[in-house]
Amino acid sequence: MSARPTLIIGTKQFSSWSLRPWLAAKMAGIAFDEVVIALRQPDTKANIMQHSPSGKVPCLIDGDLAVWDSLAICEYLAEQVPSLWPEDRAARAVARAVSAEMHSGFQNLRNLCSMDVLSDLPMAEIAPELAPEVARINAMWTDCRTRFGLSGPFLFGRFSVADAMYAPVVTRFKTYYLPLEPVPAAYADAVMALPAMAEWIKGATTSPSV
Amino acid sequence: MSARPTLIIGTKQFSSWSLRPWLAAKMAGIAFDEVVIALRQPDTKANIMQHSPSGKVPCLIDGDLAVWDSLAICEYLAEQVPSLWPEDRAARAVARAVSAEMHSGFQNLRNLCSMDVLSDLPMAEIAPELAPEVARINAMWTDCRTRFGLSGPFLFGRFSVADAMYAPVVTRFKTYYLPLEPVPAAYADAVMALPAMAEWIKGATTSPSV
Repeated sequence: MSARPTLIIGTKQFSSWSLRPWLAAKMAGIAFDEVVIALRQPDTKANIMQHSPSGKVPCLIDGDLAVWDSLAICEYLAEQVPSLWPEDRAARAVARAVSAEMHSGFQNLRNLCSMDVLSDLPMAEIAPELAPEVARINAMWTDCRTRFGLSGPFLFGRFSVADAMYAPVVTRFKTYYLPLEPVPAAYADAVMALPAMAEWIKGATTSPSV
Repeated sequence: MSARPTLIIGTKQFSSWSLRPWLAAKMAGIAFDEVVIALRQPDTKANIMQHSPSGKVPCLIDGDLAVWDSLAICEYLAEQVPSLWPEDRAARAVARAVSAEMHSGFQNLRNLCSMDVLSDLPMAEIAPELAPEVARINAMWTDCRTRFGLSGPFLFGRFSVADAMYAPVVTRFKTYYLPLEPVPAAYADAVMALPAMAEWIKGATTSPSV
């Protein structure tokens, strides 16, 4: 990237997809400007379409190139800063697998526990359709941490795109008080302790919202 | 990869997600064995779980490494055969963006026009929720072909992961007679003309199915 790229994101309180590449860029030390588009407004779609051909946030504008989609932006950033993926080939393959599993899945978690980093919404009961997803996330985080994560506090040791992809899942587990086993709970704490996460949440209190 | 890896896939008639990495591997000239698991059976989930921790196909088994998810497998293959992504950095970024847009999106197309490579199911009317997705795919394919695809018949000229991701969309447009503008129509014909596509469809007539 020559000049600073611009990351187009949605309301920080709610936009889980925006948090992912934003956090990856912050953690990689890649400087960028940001434009926040208020979600859930009558003109939201029109405002996004001015930047992003898919009509969705996030979108990275780098010169005359628009790169849309959270995962594609993370791959683009990782080409600049390869340490955003694990160095080991097998670990990197699994990191991409769990990232892609998040990217296309966990529909019930996304529907029933939408991201809201400013609220505390304890869930009295786990809905039956949510339970397998909560179990899968616990199992996956435990698997990554024990097989690949021993050198640091994150899923693959040092911070990677996989952590960026799951950061909005970590906040959901906190917001809705979803159950975490010990290894995943320690991992979630490590994500929440990141200064960049505090910066995002602080930004959510001041960025446009409904 | 040292020995031949094994790709775990679902019933070829229906498993759009399986077609994607299967086609990418074929086009890259990567030798692999395949195991076909019959979808829509009482024991489907149990059979898949023997191979894939996410409980979904496809899954690539390479030695003691399991790589699940269509896009993660394609990235893994592209690390062996880099020509699976466009060589130009901007083209590669857009190829990943359109691949990711497919990976997480087009929910109405997926629900209303599930892949069925053995049937002819003309759709008399395009449902209102389907129309914007049909329009977006026409616009996207036209954009890729005109901006990046002039050196060959595919989205980015020569065959790439992006074409593997959209191959099951091409078959849906054919199966359901969805409208294509001239540039996307020529692109769809190029995908359908691939010998590997004929091989997949031939396989669908003999692989387990309901």
